[in-house]
Amino acid sequence: MMNISQRIKEVPYSAIRKLTPYAEKAKADGKKVYHLNIGAPDTKTPNEFFDAIRNTNLKTLDYAPSKGMKSLMEQTCKYYRDRGADFDPESEIIITTGASEALVFSIVAVSELGQKILTCNPFYSNYYTIFRQCGINPVTFDTTVETGYRLPNYETIRDSVTEDTAAILLSNPSNPTGAVYTEEELRRVVRVAKEKDLFIIADEVYREFIFDGKDFMSFAEIEGIEDRLILLDSVSKRFGACGARIGAILCKNKALMTEIIKLATGRLAVSTIDQIGAAELYNVDKSYFEEVNAEYQKRRDCIYEELKKIDGVKVYKPEGAFYIMPDLPIKDAEDFAMWMLTDFDDNGETVMIAPGDGFYHDSNVGKSQVRLAYVINRDDLKRAIEILGKGLEKYRQLTNQ
Amino acid sequence: MMNISQRIKEVPYSAIRKLTPYAEKAKADGKKVYHLNIGAPDTKTPNEFFDAIRNTNLKTLDYAPSKGMKSLMEQTCKYYRDRGADFDPESEIIITTGASEALVFSIVAVSELGQKILTCNPFYSNYYTIFRQCGINPVTFDTTVETGYRLPNYETIRDSVTEDTAAILLSNPSNPTGAVYTEEELRRVVRVAKEKDLFIIADEVYREFIFDGKDFMSFAEIEGIEDRLILLDSVSKRFGACGARIGAILCKNKALMTEIIKLATGRLAVSTIDQIGAAELYNVDKSYFEEVNAEYQKRRDCIYEELKKIDGVKVYKPEGAFYIMPDLPIKDAEDFAMWMLTDFDDNGETVMIAPGDGFYHDSNVGKSQVRLAYVINRDDLKRAIEILGKGLEKYRQLTNQ
Ligand SMILES: Cc1ncc(COP(=O)(O)O)c(C=O)c1O
Ligand SMILES: Cc1ncc(COP(=O)(O)O)c(C=O)c1O
Repeated sequence: MMNISQRIKEVPYSAIRKLTPYAEKAKADGKKVYHLNIGAPDTKTPNEFFDAIRNTNLKTLDYAPSKGMKSLMEQTCKYYRDRGADFDPESEIIITTGASEALVFSIVAVSELGQKILTCNPFYSNYYTIFRQCGINPVTFDTTVETGYRLPNYETIRDSVTEDTAAILLSNPSNPTGAVYTEEELRRVVRVAKEKDLFIIADEVYREFIFDGKDFMSFAEIEGIEDRLILLDSVSKRFGACGARIGAILCKNKALMTEIIKLATGRLAVSTIDQIGAAELYNVDKSYFEEVNAEYQKRRDCIYEELKKIDGVKVYKPEGAFYIMPDLPIKDAEDFAMWMLTDFDDNGETVMIAPGDGFYHDSNVGKSQVRLAYVINRDDLKRAIEILGKGLEKYRQLTNQ
Repeated sequence: MMNISQRIKEVPYSAIRKLTPYAEKAKADGKKVYHLNIGAPDTKTPNEFFDAIRNTNLKTLDYAPSKGMKSLMEQTCKYYRDRGADFDPESEIIITTGASEALVFSIVAVSELGQKILTCNPFYSNYYTIFRQCGINPVTFDTTVETGYRLPNYETIRDSVTEDTAAILLSNPSNPTGAVYTEEELRRVVRVAKEKDLFIIADEVYREFIFDGKDFMSFAEIEGIEDRLILLDSVSKRFGACGARIGAILCKNKALMTEIIKLATGRLAVSTIDQIGAAELYNVDKSYFEEVNAEYQKRRDCIYEELKKIDGVKVYKPEGAFYIMPDLPIKDAEDFAMWMLTDFDDNGETVMIAPGDGFYHDSNVGKSQVRLAYVINRDDLKRAIEILGKGLEKYRQLTNQ
């Protein structure tokens, strides 16, 4: 029978996608729209990438090896080695088309159809799409704005594991909250994973974005979980190279990696040119990371300070990534986000924001929250939050909230 | 429970992958190995691709739109329009990471977990991996070397459809056989699809490789199946640009396309640089296709004539793609393929071939077959088949076959 599948129908349309036509309309009507909704860094991609692809003398664009090109695997492993995590470029890394594909491969490799993967509320919304694509379902435990989205205690995490849970998946630093987990929090997760015998899928694609001079602690630095740890990697945020679609799976469980290679073989290869470019990205000077980091920290400070000024907004200081997820004094953030585009402007300017609901599973708290990405310059950021505050005030008056 | 999933374990290791270490050993021992096992064209990728990426003045490698970049969607639709198939670049195409990803998206969109997709034996072996990744299973009907792998009659195709079959998937021209289906054969498939209410997933990535001056008939040229036809596209073979990882889904069922966009959004984007390069590929002169085609036709003639000379080999004249799938007078083609690498040489030279078994589901006929890709120049091809013949003779003597 010719039917569009339920599994795809059950994936919600992304709220951003729903709002986009209204943003386009607002722009067509002459409004300036500040985008706080997208998570793509505006930083310049290092020249190393463009130089490398410009200088290639390839004549035939052949399939690269399914598991990845040697130079990129070596460069990625070197990056990790410099950061205290040792992976063998011969057998403990597989290059993927972004962390997005790394997620698919990891999930398919560790879960049967209909099984579950545990993650926290709120989570990176595309996880849900990918879960459904892979034929599995999420289970979640909650983190809250009041604690700055810290992980809950050991018992709460443990008790959220179901019989058919195959793995715990966490993004750290977190998209959408910007929380960065402490060693103690990681060890809490590890304790549950060991006790319940689960894989840990660690999505650390924002690991370069850590503020206030803190050290980032990776799951890869914790001993005794070599067999159960699957690390997902990406150059997208690290080098402002989202369009390169280069990611990786790093894992010391060789039996698992041998199986994942079957999936990599099934889709043949990752882009040759992008791998050539990405390998060279790893030759950037250390100062590149420092400069980018310093800039994002200033933006974090800016958005945090500006949000604090708005009446009724619950906010906290995120420690990493480039997102913040405040709670607004309104009932329906999606309605508010739409209204900001259709009915509001301040001197011809408005903002586009991502409603929080799409980042939650089996929960309503997201309905009053929004995710803001601070990937625009500070002057614009300050102005955008000012507009947000003014819009919020007016919207609350109009709706008696 | 931490287990490597059954669904991934059930995917067989590709025979090629198993044989590769032996090929490497043979080379290390000083043997020259002719590769008839790989399906990547050796033709030069048109300069248009490299010029385009060399000349880009992008500064930030941002995510491209999830459904693809406008220029590439337009160029692809124009290519199809010139060939009698009209797709709207606004709503009837989604760019994918190769036809490989187009397969995943199509399958997930039309099938529930555990459902079936009907294809023919033998089929492109990665279909099986992709089926398992997507949580579905194949059902098959057989085609045979004796008929040059023509499709069976209407009743046979119809009777192979099960209750839980969601779609018919066919590659045309066929990998691995090189069969090109006639209009009458396509209509047979369409009749079954309509009667049983199935989607048709048409994998026509070899459509430029059609010999003897024949016209290629696409499923897209058949009326009355607009809603059920999902066309898979790729620049890999068309332009000798396998490493670009650019493909597409073309489909007039807008409801279905709207759902597939969710999957595209879930993985964010396809490579920006490769899309820029691929869009320019469509500016090659028409003579490019003609030259490539002429060259492959000569290779087809060469491999066919040489294979005919070998005693006991069942062979036929493929009409397209760049594969041929003869039946050899031996019981175990995988053992023979291995032996050719480990124990045989003719003047220090041997060949690597793909055992046929991996292209079949629920059938043993592939065990005596091999898939040969004629993607090397004619002198090498002739020599490779000579070596194959000599090896076959010796192997049959040694094994009394
Ligand atoms: C937490 C998280 N994981 C994974 C990804 C996917 O990144 P990519 O596929 O570009 O590597 C993203 C992108 O925004 C993300 O935020
Ligand atoms: C029949 C068929 N379909 C699909 C593909 C996948 O091609 P790509 O992902 O490179 O577009 C191939 C590659 O060999 C193929 O032979």
